[in-house]
Amino acid sequence: MNIEGTPYRTIWPAEDGVAVEIIDQTRLPHEFVTVRLENLHDTALAIRNMLVRGAPLIGATAAYGVALAMSGDASDQGLEHACDTLAATRPTAINLRWALARMKNLLLPAPASQRAARAWKEAAAICDEDVNINRAIGEHGLKLIQRVLEAKGGPVNILTHCNAGWLATVDWGTALAPIYAASNAGIPLHVWVDETRPRNQGASLTAWELKQHGVPHTVIADNTGGHLMQHGMVDMVIVGTDRTTACGDVCNKIGTYLKALAAFDNQVPFYVALPGPTIDWTLEDGVRDIPIEQRDAEEVTRIRGRTAEGEIVSVILTPPGSPAANYAFDVTPARLVTGLITERGVCTASREGLLALYPERQ
Amino acid sequence: MNIEGTPYRTIWPAEDGVAVEIIDQTRLPHEFVTVRLENLHDTALAIRNMLVRGAPLIGATAAYGVALAMSGDASDQGLEHACDTLAATRPTAINLRWALARMKNLLLPAPASQRAARAWKEAAAICDEDVNINRAIGEHGLKLIQRVLEAKGGPVNILTHCNAGWLATVDWGTALAPIYAASNAGIPLHVWVDETRPRNQGASLTAWELKQHGVPHTVIADNTGGHLMQHGMVDMVIVGTDRTTACGDVCNKIGTYLKALAAFDNQVPFYVALPGPTIDWTLEDGVRDIPIEQRDAEEVTRIRGRTAEGEIVSVILTPPGSPAANYAFDVTPARLVTGLITERGVCTASREGLLALYPERQ
Repeated sequence: MNIEGTPYRTIWPAEDGVAVEIIDQTRLPHEFVTVRLENLHDTALAIRNMLVRGAPLIGATAAYGVALAMSGDASDQGLEHACDTLAATRPTAINLRWALARMKNLLLPAPASQRAARAWKEAAAICDEDVNINRAIGEHGLKLIQRVLEAKGGPVNILTHCNAGWLATVDWGTALAPIYAASNAGIPLHVWVDETRPRNQGASLTAWELKQHGVPHTVIADNTGGHLMQHGMVDMVIVGTDRTTACGDVCNKIGTYLKALAAFDNQVPFYVALPGPTIDWTLEDGVRDIPIEQRDAEEVTRIRGRTAEGEIVSVILTPPGSPAANYAFDVTPARLVTGLITERGVCTASREGLLALYPERQ
Repeated sequence: MNIEGTPYRTIWPAEDGVAVEIIDQTRLPHEFVTVRLENLHDTALAIRNMLVRGAPLIGATAAYGVALAMSGDASDQGLEHACDTLAATRPTAINLRWALARMKNLLLPAPASQRAARAWKEAAAICDEDVNINRAIGEHGLKLIQRVLEAKGGPVNILTHCNAGWLATVDWGTALAPIYAASNAGIPLHVWVDETRPRNQGASLTAWELKQHGVPHTVIADNTGGHLMQHGMVDMVIVGTDRTTACGDVCNKIGTYLKALAAFDNQVPFYVALPGPTIDWTLEDGVRDIPIEQRDAEEVTRIRGRTAEGEIVSVILTPPGSPAANYAFDVTPARLVTGLITERGVCTASREGLLALYPERQ
């Protein structure tokens, strides 16, 4: 995607070939700063301190972390140490574990002298695969947006929640991939961006990336979507998902379920964009079976922003002694989902729909 | 209600009898400061700058503003000037206009020498009437909470949105009146407080007043209620309303509709507390007929809070150049409302239900 007209990925090898560069996402939306990762330690810190976030991007960064480690110490111990160090950065990130297992399985049987070269190549392949999956999601989703445009004839208003954009992946994003594909294809559109409390990924990340790529958008409080849908101001909803059950229930950022209810109540199509690997084929009933992470209450009681003087500060919003709770995700039952947009095409949110696209899971 | 064990109203005549005192609500939840209003000018500023807010409290404050003006200049011109000055403070506040008309109608026919005494008495009467209405709402709502307690046997979990508490009225509040009545009656309960972006009245005002009165509560992001209801963690919802149609549609703070949808989807009773005067008997279809105020986008792009050093600052949350929209209210259709709690009792959200309580409107 573009940043002020220049194409970027969220992670790339440095020109000198001995380091990796990333965007420091903790500084967004107030500052655009790239950071050079020169070794395993830098990479582990970048993941732990959330300079990079989003499951696909965490996986890609970890792969490059192994490559950087192999350029230093390509011994068996070096490889084990790199994988253990990186795995410990974000204990619950599934893509992280998947990327590390893939790197280890490839490198452990190889002679130490070849490990660095292979690791750099494999990390690049992981990135390219992510980009290809997301580009395919974008192309399938683009057709849905085109259909809305044909039926409506005016600019297409799309509501999204949280950040399932290119900042969460290597490029394109998942929920935003169809939006970028439509924007690049010249389709007139406008995106309602839920600010997405408590961490405000919508207001800070989604708004920033849409702005940089030149996609018209408006930030709204999370409370607003129902009203907009009641008044015909939303043509479709597209969100991402962290985990999808075999029956099509989707677990996504807290508040997604409320938007799905409003979409259903107002006959607004509600789509969920996802790469196949986020489907958990072992689960059926998402509300019953998916454990919901509770995060630090301080994410609710405090918020970070920029003062008039340009300083980034954290302020307290609640009275002393008032406790807060912070459930990070909720589950939207498949019955409220119009369709799932995957890299293999669009299907209904159901076991039959998913199996038609992924018949090898039969 | 109590503030650290001491009973308070939100407005009261000063002990010396020549001024009125209020709580400066702009300093909450970070500081509790009372302010002395000595004349018309002080009162107009207090309303305009939102030191007092909430329809009933604005009306009561305006009435005292007329009394303060009459103590200075009780001429016809003095009365006209006072009413005009106060009416201009908050152009859309209906209670403000109602209270001023009531004061003017009473005072204009009276001899100037008697106006001050009558005005002080009438302002006190307006306050007492508000308290009585809200106390009655509380008693009717208390029975609903008692019924949930009997069915459930444990602490009753109630979710509320925005601030329809005693800070918005002279005492008791509307949506919170049943909660205070239940708390005073020793019913074990816990309140989920929606922070209520963008102005955060839940996190700042509702949490503060519940804390002061000793009611257990937890602040949550507005996105959270659906998840809580899916998991049986909410026994009932009680919210206020700014305007209710003759058919029982309710216009309340933006986001109320989303909570009503979630309550309906999970069979959680959804109650709306209201004083009879907020029913607009001229309207039927709320979604179609009630115009929704759009407020300054800066309420979305900025937020005020307290820094670690104790300073109250406003910080920017969004990237430069990303626009925001700020719809202040939404309409919850009557079909999603379990019941309306009024000062005359509880009824279904329907023309029949309302007319049974207000037969004079037949």
